[in-house]
Amino acid sequence: MGRVFRRAGVGPDDVVHNAYGYGLFTGGLGMHYAALEVGAAVVPMSGGYTQRQGKMLKDLGATVICSTPSYAQHIAEAMGEMGISRDDLHLKVGIFGAESWSLEMCRELETQLGITALDVYGLAEIIGPGVASECLIGHEGLHVAEDLFYFEVIDPDTGRPVPDGESGELVLSSLKREATPIMRYRTGDITRILPGPCSCGRTTRRIDHIKGRVDDMFTLRGINLFPREIESELLRIEELAPVFQLVLDRNSALDILEVHIEPKDHDIVHEHLIHKVKTHLNRTLGINVAVSVQEPHSIPRSEGKAVRLVDRRNLGR
Amino acid sequence: MGRVFRRAGVGPDDVVHNAYGYGLFTGGLGMHYAALEVGAAVVPMSGGYTQRQGKMLKDLGATVICSTPSYAQHIAEAMGEMGISRDDLHLKVGIFGAESWSLEMCRELETQLGITALDVYGLAEIIGPGVASECLIGHEGLHVAEDLFYFEVIDPDTGRPVPDGESGELVLSSLKREATPIMRYRTGDITRILPGPCSCGRTTRRIDHIKGRVDDMFTLRGINLFPREIESELLRIEELAPVFQLVLDRNSALDILEVHIEPKDHDIVHEHLIHKVKTHLNRTLGINVAVSVQEPHSIPRSEGKAVRLVDRRNLGR
Repeated sequence: MGRVFRRAGVGPDDVVHNAYGYGLFTGGLGMHYAALEVGAAVVPMSGGYTQRQGKMLKDLGATVICSTPSYAQHIAEAMGEMGISRDDLHLKVGIFGAESWSLEMCRELETQLGITALDVYGLAEIIGPGVASECLIGHEGLHVAEDLFYFEVIDPDTGRPVPDGESGELVLSSLKREATPIMRYRTGDITRILPGPCSCGRTTRRIDHIKGRVDDMFTLRGINLFPREIESELLRIEELAPVFQLVLDRNSALDILEVHIEPKDHDIVHEHLIHKVKTHLNRTLGINVAVSVQEPHSIPRSEGKAVRLVDRRNLGR
Repeated sequence: MGRVFRRAGVGPDDVVHNAYGYGLFTGGLGMHYAALEVGAAVVPMSGGYTQRQGKMLKDLGATVICSTPSYAQHIAEAMGEMGISRDDLHLKVGIFGAESWSLEMCRELETQLGITALDVYGLAEIIGPGVASECLIGHEGLHVAEDLFYFEVIDPDTGRPVPDGESGELVLSSLKREATPIMRYRTGDITRILPGPCSCGRTTRRIDHIKGRVDDMFTLRGINLFPREIESELLRIEELAPVFQLVLDRNSALDILEVHIEPKDHDIVHEHLIHKVKTHLNRTLGINVAVSVQEPHSIPRSEGKAVRLVDRRNLGR
């Protein structure tokens, strides 16, 4: 796990603000120990008390922030309300993981917090965080700890490996775990092997950011979709706050997707926004959705993994 | 801190269920590292999800539980509702601190959980937990880490040391802290030095359980009182659930103390209970109080430090 921080350029001069939840969740203590391993100071915030998170980020001059990306967004929003701007902070890098997130969300966090936002990947079944992570220099794809984990990317239907560059399900085997070795564990996470070397000079192979989960994917009138793809598109629309929720429902035989959005300001005309979102998603993803405009700050913010998709199709079955 | 666990007889064969809050509160991570130091396995529960605490205590066969005493009581109560009894557990010792608690509460926890309940003392300003703690064998008074902390017990009014055996305010100086040494820190905690050696054979001096805080003490018509003393008395009354709250208010010039209690069962006659509590407190502590019987489970349970005293006297001043 220390490598995750070394890849992110974190060392003894850094102060790590760790807003992953401490406790049974592997994120909090995993990051905590990793930061100590590279000699950094840790502020063990854990989750919650979001305003206090903003205050501590500012007061203690953290240079690194760790949390889920959606919670970082929530903290940034709270800081905005408190009048704390990125110029009041000393942050340089964010290490975000535990949920899949889009390139647009990455850019948004980088702008809001004045950081380079890096992706870290792991899963409790294997080790917690630390299976793979992005480096500061390449900032494109996650280096896998290949000496610790053997990895394959397979076709989830046939179980056969797919060629480098093609998407499939990530399968992991542990190489050094003794008490609880794990062989060919199907993660359910969809990624691809990135061909070619990384500009950072590290020779470990890289996987792409997780595109979604095998069981996260949903089909809307024949089109396969991931919540992350829709997030990508929604974040391109300036008038929207960077939170949303997808509600999937079934009307007789047809699946209906309702996109819950929030305007950034009270004075944005709802009809205009609905039209814009519907047109945009139809154009970019080829889907027809219903759009529901919510009151600002009404969509639940996340302190951990955001619930992006509410699937009502299976209720009552 | 490892000594706290060694004094409690905890070692590599133990599983420590740590229900102190992880995060900025020093209790969680302090106990966590201490348990690891003696080679024990730790279940990093942190606070909250009380039913899950009970389930994990049972499923993972913890031999040691760490939490505030009031939260341990809350967990025990939740286990009772879930049908988990002390016979389903493998607990042998509890390490409780971060609030002052009475001998009666200690006995209650020992009976409910089938453990020896040990007191641990510390404060965030000095080191967090670990300044002093009880040993399993003597189980009477807390051994101070005298090589790390110089301690005095003084008269809070004159600032002069009181003789061994007499109560006063505990004052601490750190002997080995380098970056942030602390000299003659007035803890506000009231205790006394226990004369004589401990039956465990350790030669470090011991302090008594914290009787209360200098600023916790309140005066009711001339009588100095600590919430802990009232707790002691209330726990002697069989028909009461082991939770209570004191509400201190002022009616013209007179302070009025209202004791909020809960009957153990629905069918206990309130009038009987009120009479019993009033008479008992008058007899044992010489005070006249108002008694308010609350619905079972309505007094807030604590997941951290219990709020025993609500002081309304200063409101609006």
